[in-house]
Amino acid sequence: MENFSFYSPTKFVFGQDTENKCGALVREFGGSKVLLHYGGGSVVRSGLLDRVKKSLTESGISFCELGGVHPNPLDSKVYEGIELCRKESIDFIVAVGGGSTIDSAKAIAMGVPYEGDFWDFYSGKNSPKAALPVGTVLTIAAAGSEGSGDSVITKEDGMLKRGAGSDLIRPKFSVLNPALTMTLPAYQTACGATDIMAHVFERYFTNTQNVETTDRLCEAVLLSMIHETPKVIANPNDYQARANIMWAGMVAHNNIVGVGRDQDWNSHGIEHELSALYDCAHGAGLAVIMPAWMQYVVEHDVMRFAQMATRVWNCKMDFANPLKTAMDGIQAFKNFLKSIGMPLTFAELGAKEEDIPTLVKNFGIGDGETGGFVHLKAKDIENIYRLAL
Amino acid sequence: MENFSFYSPTKFVFGQDTENKCGALVREFGGSKVLLHYGGGSVVRSGLLDRVKKSLTESGISFCELGGVHPNPLDSKVYEGIELCRKESIDFIVAVGGGSTIDSAKAIAMGVPYEGDFWDFYSGKNSPKAALPVGTVLTIAAAGSEGSGDSVITKEDGMLKRGAGSDLIRPKFSVLNPALTMTLPAYQTACGATDIMAHVFERYFTNTQNVETTDRLCEAVLLSMIHETPKVIANPNDYQARANIMWAGMVAHNNIVGVGRDQDWNSHGIEHELSALYDCAHGAGLAVIMPAWMQYVVEHDVMRFAQMATRVWNCKMDFANPLKTAMDGIQAFKNFLKSIGMPLTFAELGAKEEDIPTLVKNFGIGDGETGGFVHLKAKDIENIYRLAL
Repeated sequence: MENFSFYSPTKFVFGQDTENKCGALVREFGGSKVLLHYGGGSVVRSGLLDRVKKSLTESGISFCELGGVHPNPLDSKVYEGIELCRKESIDFIVAVGGGSTIDSAKAIAMGVPYEGDFWDFYSGKNSPKAALPVGTVLTIAAAGSEGSGDSVITKEDGMLKRGAGSDLIRPKFSVLNPALTMTLPAYQTACGATDIMAHVFERYFTNTQNVETTDRLCEAVLLSMIHETPKVIANPNDYQARANIMWAGMVAHNNIVGVGRDQDWNSHGIEHELSALYDCAHGAGLAVIMPAWMQYVVEHDVMRFAQMATRVWNCKMDFANPLKTAMDGIQAFKNFLKSIGMPLTFAELGAKEEDIPTLVKNFGIGDGETGGFVHLKAKDIENIYRLAL
Repeated sequence: MENFSFYSPTKFVFGQDTENKCGALVREFGGSKVLLHYGGGSVVRSGLLDRVKKSLTESGISFCELGGVHPNPLDSKVYEGIELCRKESIDFIVAVGGGSTIDSAKAIAMGVPYEGDFWDFYSGKNSPKAALPVGTVLTIAAAGSEGSGDSVITKEDGMLKRGAGSDLIRPKFSVLNPALTMTLPAYQTACGATDIMAHVFERYFTNTQNVETTDRLCEAVLLSMIHETPKVIANPNDYQARANIMWAGMVAHNNIVGVGRDQDWNSHGIEHELSALYDCAHGAGLAVIMPAWMQYVVEHDVMRFAQMATRVWNCKMDFANPLKTAMDGIQAFKNFLKSIGMPLTFAELGAKEEDIPTLVKNFGIGDGETGGFVHLKAKDIENIYRLAL
């Protein structure tokens, strides 16, 4: 176990009707003039936005609005938000939506007090020193952005999808009402579940030894996801299963299950180029990439994959052939993804073999290496894309 | 799953030599004049207190000291601390020690800005509206007080042990260096492990349905404790096992594994009367009480105990006789406790059968009931004490 710092100061308010507490929460954390940030029309049509507005008004909080956040959120909307916040002297941002809306809100929050270009935080050129406070009303269990210090934005010029991270952008509060996720189509629900499981796997595959506590916590989240996800695919209105998935989604990504160990976020990075280029759902891209990545790196640590296979997927350990057990686990993961309606190949995702050189180029490591569990070069990235054909 | 609010804003700084960051952490959280609160001589003899003082001084933080906290912390020390803080205009308390020292610091923190008697918060007469900020340097993995909003104090007049809880007393920061726990004798280490496991069990046994995510998280902590504790009993200098236990101890009690479900803290309450009367270690008392409580209530929900038996203790499910599986799980817990050197009976603990009426009286429910999983009356409390003889 390595030294670490863990700081997750977000107040999570979870359960039925909790969006009505928004106004009181903004007030509790010192906000008085809010930017309400959201995506498409669903939060308007469902009446959610009106309920949030009512709650703000009842608490004496004024607000202005910026909708239209794109599912893979774009830098153009962030610039728009920064300008609006400055013009309106906004002191608090409330994101109503999923990970894209929250990530966009976090980018705006960092950009407002910064003199330079907010993209500096995503290109690695600079780190934020201050940010406006952010609160969230979550509408999809997936990205874990409601409890994380991470944000991912796509730069339209070149369609580059990049991440930034800072404790400064951890939300002050997050309202988690599982009922808000009941209207999600099965496909989006499954994409969210895949993203949650991927957040755990990116932490699970590590070279750090002696991490039994976080190993077991990772496995716990995965076991629950395997148990609960098929329930909501079968019955979208299963509030209880939605609730278990929603809390698992937060736990999977606020890093309480990932501290003290090196992590490997290559599958996320490799996927990001897919969703940037094809504008597909991040979770669907992960369903295609993550098993391919596993197959590609399995021999780096067969016993860790065998541990996943036995503890998470209930495979029998083949003591004469641990690699077989490891591969059985990866196959079980693929079977699970298929069972919840996820694509497993480029073709099923709508991605094209001939774009692989572009994807590798956009990945942008040139002659360098990337990764924590296994270091990969551009050729390896290409091989993983090809494994996913 | 029930509605809940979860707020754990503590910054955890974990690993080797992290006590040297104390000064910077106090400064980060706005402190300038610290009360250094600690227990016996071990933190002095080990040089830990000097390292903390050096760190404070290097960050330009002034401090005064109050040592002598008793293992079951007493109200008298709390009154002393409140007076000292007021006299010295203290604005931050740093507890260096285990759960007792931290709990005492939290009591002082609530007491300083309060006009009435701090005991009001423990007797249920009032709730705190403000508290001084608290930081901790943890020296034993056990109570989980480093990440919780709880505090337990013993009132010398009548030897009443009572708890108070508020998000206001969640520590601003907690320094967790597993190396600091290496000098603990095996017995105290085992007491700590028992306390950690009990914190999980008190959450695990619930009547709330559909709590798969938190069930799995509870089981994860228990599985890790079962794996790691024997290692440190065999080799006190096993840093890695100490580290896994230390993080498990925090996770077990900041409530991330217990949200959205009713909980049952009767075993803690029943034990508190033992440690209050005999001044025994809390963990040792729990080793005596918790299995007895389990045996007493097992028929309330046989399948939940069978789930524990199979998932946590690796018992085979007896489908023809689930009660047998449930009892096998309880027996496995007892065997584990015995294997790490814990007492299982009144006699082994040094408690006396003839004191049972006093213990029941001190428990103080009169004709009332208590408990979440199973409601118990005074007669039931007596029966549980007798089961533990």
